[in-house]
Amino acid sequence: MLNYWIGMAAICAFAMAGVLAAGRRGMDIIALLFMGVITAVGGGTLRDLLLGVPVFWMIDFNYVWVASAASLAAFALARHLRDETVWAAILYLDAFGIALFGVQSIDKALAHGFAAPVAIVMATITGIGGGLIRDVLAQRENLLSSREIYATTIITGGMLYTFLLAQGGASHGASLCGVAFTFAFRGLAIHFGWQMPKWLTLRH
Amino acid sequence: MLNYWIGMAAICAFAMAGVLAAGRRGMDIIALLFMGVITAVGGGTLRDLLLGVPVFWMIDFNYVWVASAASLAAFALARHLRDETVWAAILYLDAFGIALFGVQSIDKALAHGFAAPVAIVMATITGIGGGLIRDVLAQRENLLSSREIYATTIITGGMLYTFLLAQGGASHGASLCGVAFTFAFRGLAIHFGWQMPKWLTLRH
Amino acid sequence: MLNYWIGMAAICAFAMAGVLAAGRRGMDIIALLFMGVITAVGGGTLRDLLLGVPVFWMIDFNYVWVASAASLAAFALARHLRDETVWAAILYLDAFGIALFGVQSIDKALAHGFAAPVAIVMATITGIGGGLIRDVLAQRENLLSSREIYATTIITGGMLYTFLLAQGGASHGASLCGVAFTFAFRGLAIHFGWQMPKWLTLRH
Repeated sequence: MLNYWIGMAAICAFAMAGVLAAGRRGMDIIALLFMGVITAVGGGTLRDLLLGVPVFWMIDFNYVWVASAASLAAFALARHLRDETVWAAILYLDAFGIALFGVQSIDKALAHGFAAPVAIVMATITGIGGGLIRDVLAQRENLLSSREIYATTIITGGMLYTFLLAQGGASHGASLCGVAFTFAFRGLAIHFGWQMPKWLTLRH
Repeated sequence: MLNYWIGMAAICAFAMAGVLAAGRRGMDIIALLFMGVITAVGGGTLRDLLLGVPVFWMIDFNYVWVASAASLAAFALARHLRDETVWAAILYLDAFGIALFGVQSIDKALAHGFAAPVAIVMATITGIGGGLIRDVLAQRENLLSSREIYATTIITGGMLYTFLLAQGGASHGASLCGVAFTFAFRGLAIHFGWQMPKWLTLRH
Repeated sequence: MLNYWIGMAAICAFAMAGVLAAGRRGMDIIALLFMGVITAVGGGTLRDLLLGVPVFWMIDFNYVWVASAASLAAFALARHLRDETVWAAILYLDAFGIALFGVQSIDKALAHGFAAPVAIVMATITGIGGGLIRDVLAQRENLLSSREIYATTIITGGMLYTFLLAQGGASHGASLCGVAFTFAFRGLAIHFGWQMPKWLTLRH
């Protein structure tokens, strides 16, 4: 139950970040609503289609209501949300969201009988899918063109989590470790502006 | 049965509008065929994947044959189709298509046990999905970057339709109202060149 | 069994071609890994989602391991792979891949009860889907904007193969013919730099 409400808060952060990132002068409210909702639920939608299970927001539409409300709020308050402290708060809540949904996606994939590496891919798609679809629709440069440390935190956090599960560790403790590690890694990357080192980028 | 043939006519309009919108000098016939067919059946494909039901054109390939024939006709007649009256006819037929497929999509979603709001989202995705995929593949500005009144007509028409159904109105009468409202709203938007008002667009 | 290993070699070619085509100076290793893997398995993923069957790499993750290894190799060796003879080898292996996966996709679609034209569409999507998704994510011009003879070879090869199957020809012989025809057609198009003739392109 607590997880559910934390998840909703993260959905808000995803949607607001989506509206603020994609919003351009002159874009109308319906388009912004789409951008916000797609950013928030797009990744989980891809995950559920790939897993062959019912799409989460089609069963519990509250996810879309919350994402819609957050998008409309971001539209109304756009000027204030561009304030640096507010934007930082959204970034850290987004970081918490990818950490939480990453672990949840791994649980979902494992519960449906998929192997651990598949589960980690599902966590990654859940975390980055919504933003990728948004950027494609908004004709913006996406995550894959930047050297930001984002997917890397989900993948390493997922590896840690599935490793702990495989060691037979208590599932609750493993969840906590997985979420904490991903959140801490991503949080540090935000705080220090970490980027992929030069030698891990294409130079020719 | 009548619905089936009207639907095929709308598929023609979608495909032709797709070819004419995406077609650029030098694009070859196979690419145009893809653009036309994707515009025509893309939205319904997304809807069926999300609903978890067999994709409509994979069961009845006539949709693809008709969309292909319309695309090839649009290729051959491209010069004449850019005539203003012909283009207007295609726009209005497209308006009728989104109205008809919107109501059909809502019926399909409700019949599979989804809630009314989910059904309205399905109608919207059916109406705009094909055009969005086409514009992404053609690297064009898409619907979300314009202030055109398009998705709004599907959403409001869908709200009216599901409201009438919930009132226990005769399903046939409700269908007619839903299609007529969406078509009229979109038709007026085309005729008068309506756009989203400035105060409903992002200004910063 | 032989098919399996040939398929893995083709997956390597897809992934390497993906990394080399999408890779831009400054793109990091994780992004390149994504580009390579998506190019390699994206088309088959779309096919399996449309067919409503489990996604092939989620059942046998070896496809992703192989695509990942090939992508990392392409990253490490990028400078040498741009050598003309190496690039030509990758192009021909890619040609073999679309031929082989085309026939396999047709078999898969027919085995699930879909009609021959649907099966040919599945072969085409398998062949071009991964590259399209990659180009959309990399904001590059895609196959549909060029006049290259690519999808045409899969469609005609698929028509030949399904025709031979319908004639009751031995399925093994038909497979060989289908793969050989597609590979030869695409190979000739690469060798001679064939393009769609001018009269089959949009001129206005």
